Amino acid sequence: MGVVLKYGGTSIATIEKINQIAKHIAFLKETEDNIVVVVSAMGKSTDELIKLAKQLSDNLPRREIDTLLSTGEQQTIALLAIALKGNGVDAISLTGFQAGFKTTNSHTKGIIMDVDITRVLSHLKQQKIVVVAGFQGISSDGDITTLGRGGSDTSAVALAAKLGYRCEIYTDVDGIYTVDPRLYKTAKKLDRISFEEMMEMASLGAGVIETRSVELAKKYNVSLYIAKSLSQSGSGTYIMNENYLFEDKPITGISVTDNVAMIILEGVKNDLKTVTKVFEIVSEKNINLDMISQNIDNDKNLVVSFSIDSDDIEVFEECKQENKDLFDTIKTQVMTDIIKLSLVGVGMASNFGVASKVFTTLANNNVPFLHVSTSEISISCTINKENKAKAVSVLAQAFKL
Amino acid sequence: MGVVLKYGGTSIATIEKINQIAKHIAFLKETEDNIVVVVSAMGKSTDELIKLAKQLSDNLPRREIDTLLSTGEQQTIALLAIALKGNGVDAISLTGFQAGFKTTNSHTKGIIMDVDITRVLSHLKQQKIVVVAGFQGISSDGDITTLGRGGSDTSAVALAAKLGYRCEIYTDVDGIYTVDPRLYKTAKKLDRISFEEMMEMASLGAGVIETRSVELAKKYNVSLYIAKSLSQSGSGTYIMNENYLFEDKPITGISVTDNVAMIILEGVKNDLKTVTKVFEIVSEKNINLDMISQNIDNDKNLVVSFSIDSDDIEVFEECKQENKDLFDTIKTQVMTDIIKLSLVGVGMASNFGVASKVFTTLANNNVPFLHVSTSEISISCTINKENKAKAVSVLAQAFKL
Repeated sequence: MGVVLKYGGTSIATIEKINQIAKHIAFLKETEDNIVVVVSAMGKSTDELIKLAKQLSDNLPRREIDTLLSTGEQQTIALLAIALKGNGVDAISLTGFQAGFKTTNSHTKGIIMDVDITRVLSHLKQQKIVVVAGFQGISSDGDITTLGRGGSDTSAVALAAKLGYRCEIYTDVDGIYTVDPRLYKTAKKLDRISFEEMMEMASLGAGVIETRSVELAKKYNVSLYIAKSLSQSGSGTYIMNENYLFEDKPITGISVTDNVAMIILEGVKNDLKTVTKVFEIVSEKNINLDMISQNIDNDKNLVVSFSIDSDDIEVFEECKQENKDLFDTIKTQVMTDIIKLSLVGVGMASNFGVASKVFTTLANNNVPFLHVSTSEISISCTINKENKAKAVSVLAQAFKL
Repeated sequence: MGVVLKYGGTSIATIEKINQIAKHIAFLKETEDNIVVVVSAMGKSTDELIKLAKQLSDNLPRREIDTLLSTGEQQTIALLAIALKGNGVDAISLTGFQAGFKTTNSHTKGIIMDVDITRVLSHLKQQKIVVVAGFQGISSDGDITTLGRGGSDTSAVALAAKLGYRCEIYTDVDGIYTVDPRLYKTAKKLDRISFEEMMEMASLGAGVIETRSVELAKKYNVSLYIAKSLSQSGSGTYIMNENYLFEDKPITGISVTDNVAMIILEGVKNDLKTVTKVFEIVSEKNINLDMISQNIDNDKNLVVSFSIDSDDIEVFEECKQENKDLFDTIKTQVMTDIIKLSLVGVGMASNFGVASKVFTTLANNNVPFLHVSTSEISISCTINKENKAKAVSVLAQAFKL
């Protein structure tokens, strides 16, 4: 057995932090045989590279952005390997392609198809600490790809899954909270949370870890632990199977997703082909849809609405341009300046009245809600962004978070 | 037919310069079908990365340095491809491994074994400008290697050789001079120079282009042209076969190599095995030797001396540590603060008296010379570095350069 440690951007933002982490890992190596470390790019280096690129062209080709951005992690792995060796433990750095990460060729949003761990295993056998570049892989065309937001977490979990190791994600927050402590000061830290709840929380914008990683961890039963970089052992949050947990309240936490845009399509022809075509077009562009709803209007046409990340509005407009025939008959509305609020809890399924309590609480406090969608363990609604602080606070109080 | 253009560090040091070069290449593309561009890292980025690494450890593992430094060119290729596309021409970036550069695994001093141009050719067929990362490749172990000093020139020439294209090297000087103009103001620019002379000039520190590249160009008969970035067409220096040239004077130019160290080994046992062993040990560490000489002392032991780059002194000391048995009986002396001066000319072979004129000129001007070595077309000697300006000036005058 062994462990995959993952260190994110702010926890390795400076040379001093890299050195501290190297010392810490050297210390762990005394009791742990097999250690793989997955790292992101240092702090703001990704933003700086994008800034350079934007000076050259308004139109940034995604393939080239991947080639550019993947240098960030490549620098971190080399520096961390140098620091580890400087601290007396043997280490070797591997880029995404060297570590065997095979991805789809959807640039800037690559998906891991497989990880060939042959090389990682051979270096572990040599008693080396293997330092792997997260967030990146190589496509079947031989092109460098990046995995999109939160990709380094997914890299770490995927490696842990293939190696059969546990996975520890180190970041700049000290665990998972019932509510984002920046939004609600008296929020409590959770010692443990189920995979399901974490997935909802993550997909709903909890920010600490992305859904894909939790999903992957659940699927391959990888034990996950999230904690502050260099914090005391056990002070973070364990993510585990639902049946290890006791539920005593319906809501575990509230997540907030900023930068949401709602797309409302009116006058969509009421046949399966047209609707399917719309979703096909949008998903081909790798736009993530959420809060999908569909109704029938007075003319028996469909009204379809869904939320997307507001960063994707431009890509959605491209879709429309490229499929004029289809969109010419559809009235499109794009709503911005809204956020999504989600309440998550495995206890929700067995607890009627949660939804009603949510809506009453918001209404009593004059917070209008725009769209609503629910799952077995979550309730989401969009609200105007200026109501964010108030809504979080009244809901957290109502559910005693 | 086509062309490989190479742009070096200072000529692509800023975003503005990258954009200017992109515009220039877009203009060339109107009349030139097949264009490959080889680039180095931007300006001082390599130095900055080394500075970061040195904060982490005194001992920099060469493999990790290669992984670290190769990100420099990877950033430039992505940025230049973005700039080219922004200027309306289709382009694609390729890292060393994507462009098919197979190297030895001697890190930081890799040697190109072969270039698999399949992928480059396929993109050229698609009418794309192919932007290739110079200075880097991949070893048979799957490790990223860098080619050492001047490696980007070698990358460009190797690609040109395999593609059967001509090669144009763009830099911050406007061609090859008889003497470095910084050392001797009235030095003349050469319109053309032979491969042989250029090789001697290069290996002797002319600085503009490294010997390996010229050697490769000669071997595969690649037409070479060296000029200032964005200069008027034809204003640089053509490097071509000797027999195209007319020689009218014995000396074509003077080269100066700074940072030379002389190693003097006294008391080396006079048998072939011992001497061979010394050279074997040193070359295994990839130290370049030059000005090798060997004499027999009064005790019938050997005195062996050679010059190395003063950056390699540390590695040489490692050699000694690792081979104590051998070096225990040898008295080693390391001379620093010296430079090497070389006079080069294909006319030299047929012109006796050149060496004598060199030594007389130096002696008449009170410049003591320490070691001397000669080849068919060059005379080199080491002098104390404080005599550099005087020596260059009196020799340039004596030979009317």
